[in-house]
Amino acid sequence: MYILRLNCSDRPGIVAAVATGLSNSACNIEESAQFNDHLSGQFFMRVVFTPVKPGAHEVFKTQFVAIAQQFSMNWQITPVNEKVKTLVLLSREDHCLNDLLYRWRTNHLQIDIVGVVSNHETSRKLVEERGLKFHHLPSDNKTSAEKSLQQLIETSDAELIVLARYMQILSPALCSKYTGRIINIHHSFLPGFKGAKPYHQAYERGVKIIGATAHFATVDLDEGPIIEQETVRVSHAHSPEKMQALGRDTEARVLARAIELYTERRIFLHGQRTVIL
Amino acid sequence: MYILRLNCSDRPGIVAAVATGLSNSACNIEESAQFNDHLSGQFFMRVVFTPVKPGAHEVFKTQFVAIAQQFSMNWQITPVNEKVKTLVLLSREDHCLNDLLYRWRTNHLQIDIVGVVSNHETSRKLVEERGLKFHHLPSDNKTSAEKSLQQLIETSDAELIVLARYMQILSPALCSKYTGRIINIHHSFLPGFKGAKPYHQAYERGVKIIGATAHFATVDLDEGPIIEQETVRVSHAHSPEKMQALGRDTEARVLARAIELYTERRIFLHGQRTVIL
Amino acid sequence: MYILRLNCSDRPGIVAAVATGLSNSACNIEESAQFNDHLSGQFFMRVVFTPVKPGAHEVFKTQFVAIAQQFSMNWQITPVNEKVKTLVLLSREDHCLNDLLYRWRTNHLQIDIVGVVSNHETSRKLVEERGLKFHHLPSDNKTSAEKSLQQLIETSDAELIVLARYMQILSPALCSKYTGRIINIHHSFLPGFKGAKPYHQAYERGVKIIGATAHFATVDLDEGPIIEQETVRVSHAHSPEKMQALGRDTEARVLARAIELYTERRIFLHGQRTVIL
Amino acid sequence: MYILRLNCSDRPGIVAAVATGLSNSACNIEESAQFNDHLSGQFFMRVVFTPVKPGAHEVFKTQFVAIAQQFSMNWQITPVNEKVKTLVLLSREDHCLNDLLYRWRTNHLQIDIVGVVSNHETSRKLVEERGLKFHHLPSDNKTSAEKSLQQLIETSDAELIVLARYMQILSPALCSKYTGRIINIHHSFLPGFKGAKPYHQAYERGVKIIGATAHFATVDLDEGPIIEQETVRVSHAHSPEKMQALGRDTEARVLARAIELYTERRIFLHGQRTVIL
Repeated sequence: MYILRLNCSDRPGIVAAVATGLSNSACNIEESAQFNDHLSGQFFMRVVFTPVKPGAHEVFKTQFVAIAQQFSMNWQITPVNEKVKTLVLLSREDHCLNDLLYRWRTNHLQIDIVGVVSNHETSRKLVEERGLKFHHLPSDNKTSAEKSLQQLIETSDAELIVLARYMQILSPALCSKYTGRIINIHHSFLPGFKGAKPYHQAYERGVKIIGATAHFATVDLDEGPIIEQETVRVSHAHSPEKMQALGRDTEARVLARAIELYTERRIFLHGQRTVIL
Repeated sequence: MYILRLNCSDRPGIVAAVATGLSNSACNIEESAQFNDHLSGQFFMRVVFTPVKPGAHEVFKTQFVAIAQQFSMNWQITPVNEKVKTLVLLSREDHCLNDLLYRWRTNHLQIDIVGVVSNHETSRKLVEERGLKFHHLPSDNKTSAEKSLQQLIETSDAELIVLARYMQILSPALCSKYTGRIINIHHSFLPGFKGAKPYHQAYERGVKIIGATAHFATVDLDEGPIIEQETVRVSHAHSPEKMQALGRDTEARVLARAIELYTERRIFLHGQRTVIL
Repeated sequence: MYILRLNCSDRPGIVAAVATGLSNSACNIEESAQFNDHLSGQFFMRVVFTPVKPGAHEVFKTQFVAIAQQFSMNWQITPVNEKVKTLVLLSREDHCLNDLLYRWRTNHLQIDIVGVVSNHETSRKLVEERGLKFHHLPSDNKTSAEKSLQQLIETSDAELIVLARYMQILSPALCSKYTGRIINIHHSFLPGFKGAKPYHQAYERGVKIIGATAHFATVDLDEGPIIEQETVRVSHAHSPEKMQALGRDTEARVLARAIELYTERRIFLHGQRTVIL
Repeated sequence: MYILRLNCSDRPGIVAAVATGLSNSACNIEESAQFNDHLSGQFFMRVVFTPVKPGAHEVFKTQFVAIAQQFSMNWQITPVNEKVKTLVLLSREDHCLNDLLYRWRTNHLQIDIVGVVSNHETSRKLVEERGLKFHHLPSDNKTSAEKSLQQLIETSDAELIVLARYMQILSPALCSKYTGRIINIHHSFLPGFKGAKPYHQAYERGVKIIGATAHFATVDLDEGPIIEQETVRVSHAHSPEKMQALGRDTEARVLARAIELYTERRIFLHGQRTVIL
């Protein structure tokens, strides 16, 4: 099975062209979702299809070039279940890492972890006992750390970079270079409580609900396109520390869901927003 | 804008045929959703389209007959925003009725209430002050009440019958006659706590979450295909009466959402289940 | 049954003094909740008690004065089920009003609505057909409108002022005068999206969850102590208008819950925050 | 800090006696919660207190004996943060185990895991690499397996037995012997879908919400007092396998929360129900 993703300006005939192209190439549609954004005039589509004959998807791919050109599409075809090469970054807190390692080990997330990077040594054992590579990039020399990081991304051929509670700021250059490929988990319900110590901010403000937000990292910190969010109730009796403890579960879950959406090729960048099909 | 709904056995070429048909008749696809049920081999599709030229949807409709025949489709085309003629039935508790009247009056639900039926007189004022017809069908003579009810459905030309906390049992004959057109709100999270006094049952069992379920009425009581459900937390401190009070909000909301799904032509009956597109 | 509420600096012996005082006056404790805020050193308590003999609560009240003095308490004793005199303010959108009227009429909220105020005429019928007084205070002359409003509060003897989607800003003087007695419903999940058109802001930011917040009105707009919040999921397919429609249910529910907490005397102001017992 | 838990028939003066006893022994109340069950006439209380002088809690304990006798209380005093000795049982699925190991390792759950028991070998590595004892009790000889299990409970001095997806049935004798000490996680929202394969049952019934339930194990399978529940939305597109995957997160979280409530001494057995303070 394969996934076709495409995005273009909305105009008549797109679905007919795609569906006919697939049908003519002996490819069956298994799943299909689309979004016609009337406010921007953009069209987004995700189709899962099965080639009925061997090689049919190659035939389709070749013939689709002309259709894509006709509608000026951004498009991509990937095999379903292809594992996404993923580099995981974290600082000290390892609840998201622990969760990702479990989902990776039990094949509940279609990722291939090509390495784990941290500015602390604390998670080395956890990573290495799973047979994965652990890279310690101390944060005292930021320029050198970032250079090493970029080298790691390139040599490991990582497609996806996951900031699993990584408390260092990536440079604008790096954020730009990997637009739409860096997922960060922020421990607040954005846009509330941007910046540092969100649980303390939430406590001060006396909110009755806290949350977590998975978003693409962009040059503007905590302003990247949101992929997934979740909230959980708190009361006056929750100190910032209790909120933190409660938040850990939410963070791990929201991050895992965002990564799953990525591996299923469901996320489309759409300006400051995301379309999830 | 129009909504095309269709259902048939899944086989290659359906989407291409539909999309090409629309495109050839100068109809633009605005929204489209489908479900290929691999377990049953059934295919379900809902398409919202705009005729670009006046009358284009009539052209499409005429040409679609052949396509529908080719794939042995059940299908239907209806105008978007067409108000669904609705008959509301209730007994004494009127929280769902009050909610429906508000949504109807403010056009938040695309229904045209053709009458309200009750086996009690309690809601007459509420109904009549909105300029609606109130029908009192006492429950002491069930046969005559049901005969009158069926007459009311037919003369009012109601498409949808809403059991908004109607505590009388409809006959199997009536349930069969109006399959897929009678929506009931059950005040429990089915299949837990079928039958009478579900909040008392929930209290006895000591559950920590209660709920409400909107489903199509069928011959088997409380076993009809589920359309929508919602849950809400309770604790040991909730007496059956407090659960009841808490449940009222949930019931009204779940019922309203089920009716909205119906008016948007999103619900497909699929054996004991529903497909919501 | 009666409710005793109290608040003071935390120190040893408070609970013993209160419980012994009740016991000695032949008053049985039915419910009791407390919060020892370790961060501020403040103590909050709410006790529901039943006088076993007629007049026992008067005896307790008299004797309690000395205890309260000893611990420098703020305290209050009110009968359970005493209806809170409430003035409701709104502008054009009446979904919260409709909901409140229903809960008031069916005794699901322990309020006595002493009047409804609006800067529009739109809700007059809805209010008057329930036998309630409707006051039209046009917003073109703000000083005169506010003067009339204050007069209304005083002459109606309203304890609670509910801003049920009232789009006018109350003066700092009025907010100060009625501190802890004005509940506002804000149609966003504060502190996200303060100010005007929160659903449009939420759409722009591409959030995946929206919400509503009931809070006490203070001089700093949208910064008052939060009483209750609730969230609901949205997707890329929700236009600002759809969010608005979805939000209406949430707003009405959150506001009703905040008012219920108030009537049950559960809300304690605690600086910028609330303690809910 | 210490936790006092008590339960007795409700009658006047209990709170006064407890609070005065604590106050007289130089013990400060930090937290207090109670439940007067009007339907059964039972009273439940949980108090967290700090001895102001060294040994004050011993003084209190000695003096409390008389009070407890006077009111015929069941009572218990335990240090806060005392780790509860816990034996974990599982079969093949290890998502709950993985989650518990993480919370145990990071001190997010106040448990001391004294061993892990399984009727399969699959989790040996996961357990032993954390330095914990793994016991393989094959299920082919049920009598011998249960004898070994009981021996393990006794020799390890385990207070709490956690069935973390243990697919074997414990004997009525064992369930009775450890009443209120065996917590099971059931992968459905009880009382819906008791018995085997609940996700398949949920799929067949077409529910729109699934859930998980942590409850005390009793002789009546799936009928034990419920401690905690949580639900999650599904749609027609969720196959039983997808529900299973979605359910894993819910199960792990619900089980962890039930164990946390246990270690905080918040759960009171109350017939078929629990009171959580």
